[in-house]
Amino acid sequence: MMAHDDRSPVTVIGLGLMGSALARVLVKNGHPTTVWNRTAGKADELVSLGATRAATVRDAVAASPTVIVCVTDYPAAYEVLESCGDALSGRHLVHLSTGTPEQAREAAAWAAERGVHYLDGAVMATPSGVGGSEAVLFYSGSEAVFAAEREMLNVLGGATSYLGADHGMASLYDSSLLGVEWGVLSGYFHAFSLVGTEGSKASTFLPVAIQFLRSIEAVFHEVARQVDEGRYPSDEETLEIHLNAMDRLIETSRARGIGVDVPEFFKSIITRAVALGHGADGLPSAFEAVKRPA
Amino acid sequence: MMAHDDRSPVTVIGLGLMGSALARVLVKNGHPTTVWNRTAGKADELVSLGATRAATVRDAVAASPTVIVCVTDYPAAYEVLESCGDALSGRHLVHLSTGTPEQAREAAAWAAERGVHYLDGAVMATPSGVGGSEAVLFYSGSEAVFAAEREMLNVLGGATSYLGADHGMASLYDSSLLGVEWGVLSGYFHAFSLVGTEGSKASTFLPVAIQFLRSIEAVFHEVARQVDEGRYPSDEETLEIHLNAMDRLIETSRARGIGVDVPEFFKSIITRAVALGHGADGLPSAFEAVKRPA
Ligand SMILES: NC(=O)c1ccc[n+]([C@@H]2O[C@H](COP(=O)([O-])OP(=O)(O)OC[C@H]3O[C@@H](n4cnc5c(N)ncnc54)[C@H](OP(=O)(O)O)[C@@H]3O)[C@@H](O)[C@H]2O)c1
Ligand SMILES: NC(=O)c1ccc[n+]([C@@H]2O[C@H](COP(=O)([O-])OP(=O)(O)OC[C@H]3O[C@@H](n4cnc5c(N)ncnc54)[C@H](OP(=O)(O)O)[C@@H]3O)[C@@H](O)[C@H]2O)c1
Repeated sequence: MMAHDDRSPVTVIGLGLMGSALARVLVKNGHPTTVWNRTAGKADELVSLGATRAATVRDAVAASPTVIVCVTDYPAAYEVLESCGDALSGRHLVHLSTGTPEQAREAAAWAAERGVHYLDGAVMATPSGVGGSEAVLFYSGSEAVFAAEREMLNVLGGATSYLGADHGMASLYDSSLLGVEWGVLSGYFHAFSLVGTEGSKASTFLPVAIQFLRSIEAVFHEVARQVDEGRYPSDEETLEIHLNAMDRLIETSRARGIGVDVPEFFKSIITRAVALGHGADGLPSAFEAVKRPA
Repeated sequence: MMAHDDRSPVTVIGLGLMGSALARVLVKNGHPTTVWNRTAGKADELVSLGATRAATVRDAVAASPTVIVCVTDYPAAYEVLESCGDALSGRHLVHLSTGTPEQAREAAAWAAERGVHYLDGAVMATPSGVGGSEAVLFYSGSEAVFAAEREMLNVLGGATSYLGADHGMASLYDSSLLGVEWGVLSGYFHAFSLVGTEGSKASTFLPVAIQFLRSIEAVFHEVARQVDEGRYPSDEETLEIHLNAMDRLIETSRARGIGVDVPEFFKSIITRAVALGHGADGLPSAFEAVKRPA
């Protein structure tokens, strides 16, 4: 696709799986896109789609007022960016490599020293999901950069959120969601194992599980409210009831010869919460056990 | 509300939190409803709404062609039902007490010996959620009973599923979803702890987490498909990459002084899957570690 006159020029540095996906979406949406990658050959396909190849990092940075970096990690990003001298000064830098909140804050300080306007970000989508209306990307740091780049950032994903001026937030939410994803996966994996013992397919069970999770979404909102208030009135279900139910799940799983690590782990959380005095409280009180170091 | 002429008469035995909720919804929807509870006073409110109190279990059973039982557990259900002599013979019995698949199958055999048409069920909603369009209830066992009672059962919850002739399936799905619920909760609890260290509220994080889960729902369908096929081609993300990411989550959590049990547990699953040879495979291969007894 030809570049549109009204789309801002962007440089993408790092053309691995994710960087290529970002650059491809920008090119397809008409942004004049300059690209650079350490292994130059990875730019070939993008150039054939309409991107411009830069010979050096310095050329790449100089080509656009906005630079997106997406490499393996923060050390790699410094290695690349420090090779461009002061070319970044005065530009917008959107950093999408994965890292810790501390690394994001250090990078913000690094950028500030060099007069670079810095927005940290995290891509919560797979490369093939990038650019989709459901793709979630988080940003935190310079609100001015976020506001100025909003239209371009929305091209990268329809579900773009700005999490505030603290540069570490995007990374913090990114890490936190990794735990949420694995929580769901571990529950699903155990459930798939269990229903599988009676010949039920994972694909048959999954839609039912998703429907169930939707039906109790209101409960999760109530869980979050109680966690924020630190008060866990027992309404209809107590931790004691769930401890019994978990024992039944362990027994049912063991009787079918499948692993019980997952329900045993959930039981350990509930047991610790009960030991903290929450047996007659509602489910959300198990948060107190998870929050505390063992 | 007055009973409707076209609504079938139903008897509800067991008026604890859940039984009362079921009976209330039936009365409100115009089903002529007869109720019995061991502690008789629990029927008072329902009688004031229009239900009929039965003096004995036998009277309660005799009053309707369809009997719903919802008491603490299966032993309690036998205790109640064996006190009604042969009154249940020829009737439809819908059993909604929570139990194991084995207990459901035993109850089906018990019913068959007595000429009772038996449908086992599981309520996946809270008492206050019963009757709602999103309330999930599972049934398994007699398809004839399910078909005949479908209209009445839909009154109890809008998301009613029949899981097949094997009486144990409703209970099996019920147990499995308990694991799914706690998987989600443990992921949320850890995430709430983590974002809380930077002053972010659980209620602020939750909608973002829900949005993220929706955005990766396609991934879960792919996970289920791969689990069914037992093949885990690595596409964009490998277990090794997630193992590194999990280490970073543990480090980030520890640095903030919150518990690390949840990410350590996820790491243990991934580590076992890697030890089984799935390091370069996709995420769904972690199913193999969860499925196997340790
Ligand atoms: N892939 C995903 O599903 C996904 C999802 C969300 C977030 N992310 C994040 O996105 C970032 C990039 O991931 P990816 O999947 O694109 O990884 P990748 O395919 O392994 O690509 C890594 C990129 O970093 C470059 N690189 C690494 N070290 C470098 C150095 N010292 N100097 C210059 N360039 C260097 C590589 O250049 P060469 O081509 O020359 O090696 C390559 O362009 C990571 O932080 C990842 O966590 C990825
Ligand atoms: N509450 C929930 O959120 C929920 C959600 C899903 C499923 N369930 C399931 O629904 C079932 C009932 O739960 P619930 O919340 O209604 O419990 P509940 O409030 O504790 O009520 C228990 C009921 O069982 C009766 N009962 C117990 N033992 C009995 C016996 N030996 N003989 C006669 N009646 C006996 C009680 O009678 P008395 O009143 O005389 O004690 C009462 O009606 C359970 O299997 C539960 O797992 C509950």
